[in-house]
Amino acid sequence: MPESLTNSLAATQAWETLLDLPASGPRHVALASALRAAIRSGRLPTGAALPPSRALAPVLGCSRWVVTQAYAQLATEGYVTGRTGSATRVRWSPGAGPAPPVGEAGPVRPRFDLAPGLPDLRAFPRRQWADALARAAAGADLGHLPAAGLPELRAVLAEYLVRSRGAVAEASSVVVCGGIRDAVGRLARGLVAAGHREVAVEDPGWGALRSVVAAAGLRVRPVPVDGDGLRVAELPPGVRVVLCSPAHQFPTGVVLSPARRAALIDWARAVDGLVVEDEYDSEFRYDRKPVGCLQGLDPSRVVLAGSAHKTLAPAVGVGWAVVPARWRTAVEAGAGPPAIDQAAFASFVAAGRYDRHLHRVRQRYRARRDLLLAALAAGRPGATTQGVSAGLHVVCSWPGLDETAVAAAARAAGVDVMTLADYRVRPGPPGLVLGYGNISDAAVPGAVAVLTAVNRLAEGWEPGLSSP
Amino acid sequence: MPESLTNSLAATQAWETLLDLPASGPRHVALASALRAAIRSGRLPTGAALPPSRALAPVLGCSRWVVTQAYAQLATEGYVTGRTGSATRVRWSPGAGPAPPVGEAGPVRPRFDLAPGLPDLRAFPRRQWADALARAAAGADLGHLPAAGLPELRAVLAEYLVRSRGAVAEASSVVVCGGIRDAVGRLARGLVAAGHREVAVEDPGWGALRSVVAAAGLRVRPVPVDGDGLRVAELPPGVRVVLCSPAHQFPTGVVLSPARRAALIDWARAVDGLVVEDEYDSEFRYDRKPVGCLQGLDPSRVVLAGSAHKTLAPAVGVGWAVVPARWRTAVEAGAGPPAIDQAAFASFVAAGRYDRHLHRVRQRYRARRDLLLAALAAGRPGATTQGVSAGLHVVCSWPGLDETAVAAAARAAGVDVMTLADYRVRPGPPGLVLGYGNISDAAVPGAVAVLTAVNRLAEGWEPGLSSP
Repeated sequence: MPESLTNSLAATQAWETLLDLPASGPRHVALASALRAAIRSGRLPTGAALPPSRALAPVLGCSRWVVTQAYAQLATEGYVTGRTGSATRVRWSPGAGPAPPVGEAGPVRPRFDLAPGLPDLRAFPRRQWADALARAAAGADLGHLPAAGLPELRAVLAEYLVRSRGAVAEASSVVVCGGIRDAVGRLARGLVAAGHREVAVEDPGWGALRSVVAAAGLRVRPVPVDGDGLRVAELPPGVRVVLCSPAHQFPTGVVLSPARRAALIDWARAVDGLVVEDEYDSEFRYDRKPVGCLQGLDPSRVVLAGSAHKTLAPAVGVGWAVVPARWRTAVEAGAGPPAIDQAAFASFVAAGRYDRHLHRVRQRYRARRDLLLAALAAGRPGATTQGVSAGLHVVCSWPGLDETAVAAAARAAGVDVMTLADYRVRPGPPGLVLGYGNISDAAVPGAVAVLTAVNRLAEGWEPGLSSP
Repeated sequence: MPESLTNSLAATQAWETLLDLPASGPRHVALASALRAAIRSGRLPTGAALPPSRALAPVLGCSRWVVTQAYAQLATEGYVTGRTGSATRVRWSPGAGPAPPVGEAGPVRPRFDLAPGLPDLRAFPRRQWADALARAAAGADLGHLPAAGLPELRAVLAEYLVRSRGAVAEASSVVVCGGIRDAVGRLARGLVAAGHREVAVEDPGWGALRSVVAAAGLRVRPVPVDGDGLRVAELPPGVRVVLCSPAHQFPTGVVLSPARRAALIDWARAVDGLVVEDEYDSEFRYDRKPVGCLQGLDPSRVVLAGSAHKTLAPAVGVGWAVVPARWRTAVEAGAGPPAIDQAAFASFVAAGRYDRHLHRVRQRYRARRDLLLAALAAGRPGATTQGVSAGLHVVCSWPGLDETAVAAAARAAGVDVMTLADYRVRPGPPGLVLGYGNISDAAVPGAVAVLTAVNRLAEGWEPGLSSP
């Protein structure tokens, strides 16, 4: 271990004491909250450098994702600078002004955003959505909604999911919610109330979902993923619920194979269990035939969860779940999106605007994916890519890749990028997770050029933990 | 007990078997879900009469509110007819058509709606809100929101609550959520995670809030309310959290007295506890000086929760909580309203439209309240009213009032009305809870005429449990 790292680790021990994290709630939220409190109280003065995620995560016993998310949130709020420079630094202090500049501070964005998570926000049909909202505000029923959501929207979503995803659904089996995380959180609380204690998740997988189920009180049991998707045979004995993303596993991008699909349904039946199918980006597929959702194979054993976060934008705030009758009450227990938004989304889908938008952005993403793959092939010959036939990100690797070093150097050079390690519970082969949803076509070659340039530096290079 | 009642009770025993309620989630949701399933499966055929709430509630061991809410939900969805007639009846069966008419069925409304809960939906500024939404959709940041909500909205709400409610708040202490129930649900889960096991509530009080905390796993301890509000001295030993509505207790309408306010804050400090202040209608006060919120007395001990449900409409779907630092992470753990709606509400408040709307509807409600009181005084001399100086409902009583009989007869005659018993955990003096938010001025005299007419019938009259 280089000396700089050892010194920094010793320094970061102090952070454990400084950050008194509460036991409940998602950990990245808790960390952001603790840091915010430390900044607001003056314990962390303006200009102070926060430890790099790789150093702080082991001290706090959390994943690097937790730290990265917490920093990003504080950057959005204006408390710290973003990670376009090398270190994340405090930019606000109680002496600096009357109140934190929360209202003014926009998110500090990297020069090139290859982090997965966002669709192309420039492609959002702002005028059509504004029209839909305005028309809904003018006409919608203004009273209380049924807990499961607006009846019209439930009917429209059922029709859409049957038609586009091969789901088995009717209006009564659809619950409207705020998104996939919201749906999984509600279900997780119902599972706990019904006596469940554990839930299996894909490893690597989406950390936010692990946080949500852990916050509900469920123990998270990671199960490895290979080229055929979730290794169903390795589901731990005793576990009866699994969260997975069969259409395009996050983050590896693999599709659950037909044999594994059958095995997963068999497993669910054998253990009297439940599969939660996370369809976070299933609308985007390019080179292969659509794979129907797992839920269609056994609607009594699968909860199908999706949202408009990636098809339109997170700001739309509408999600849904198709839920077996046994769990419907649990998933209904939450505040869904406002009635006006539900009415707007129902009319947007029913009028065919949603389908047309998807058709349009699908072309756009396919072309951008091709650009990205071509740039990678040219810039780093020998690189392998995975998960390219669908979704809004690819996984890229090459012999000898030091994912952490390359990602750190890339971030320092203004390219935001995630690694497979950021999503893993247990260690595994390296990979860069390159999202192409919210980067412009024109920026793709430049971003890849930076990536491949820093890779040359990173081969044999260990980034300093705190540089000026 | 009349024979018809005995027979009906015997018949309703069968309902316990028919309705297999799951243990988790709010009970009214569970009941609606079980009834829906029974209708969808054909076990309850078209035309079948559901038992009256007074008969079904004791069989299921729940409050009548639970039953009423479940029936109302099914009526909204089109599965049953509303209670404008005497009995709630199934109106859909699997043989009747391709899918339940969820999409088509509008809520079946009573002729006169005196049930509390809704503001005047006719007064909703549809065009202004449509404008605000459309402008937000055109301009808002479309990416992910911080968990606590849109920074601009948090700043605007803090300013509003400091100015209008005497709160101690800044942007960082405000969490945006879907409403008061949502905020209390999030907090309740954080309380459970932190080891709390019980929470005190006002009795009578809002049943939905009891359901939410019970669903989180907290034991609900009812504490009586008198003319000075919550009887602070009767808070059970060991309990460290209390939910209350100091500005206008729901449903009694009393204001927590200055001495009780001081005692409640002293209690919270002495037990290292937390007060959850439910400000469900505090914007509406007519004849007396505004009472500042409790939270202003000790922001470290009070969570202040409010929403736009009663000031604008439930369909706006925006609520908020001012939360002590210790509990902020817990309350941030949930899906708030979409970013576009948060931006719209922030601009609506910042532009002064919210204040102007409140000023306008306050005049409207005051005049309607005067109409209602005059009609009650004329129609039922000797009636006493309570809680009249604020909010959107009054409590009315008179010597010998049989609240249940009068309410049942009123409903049968097309006047929807609630009783204190509907909100009680333990028995107490009778009272009719008359909401005047969403009834037209023109309808007030007619509604009161029906009420006083059925009262004459009810004196000595026991309504049949199932009439044709």
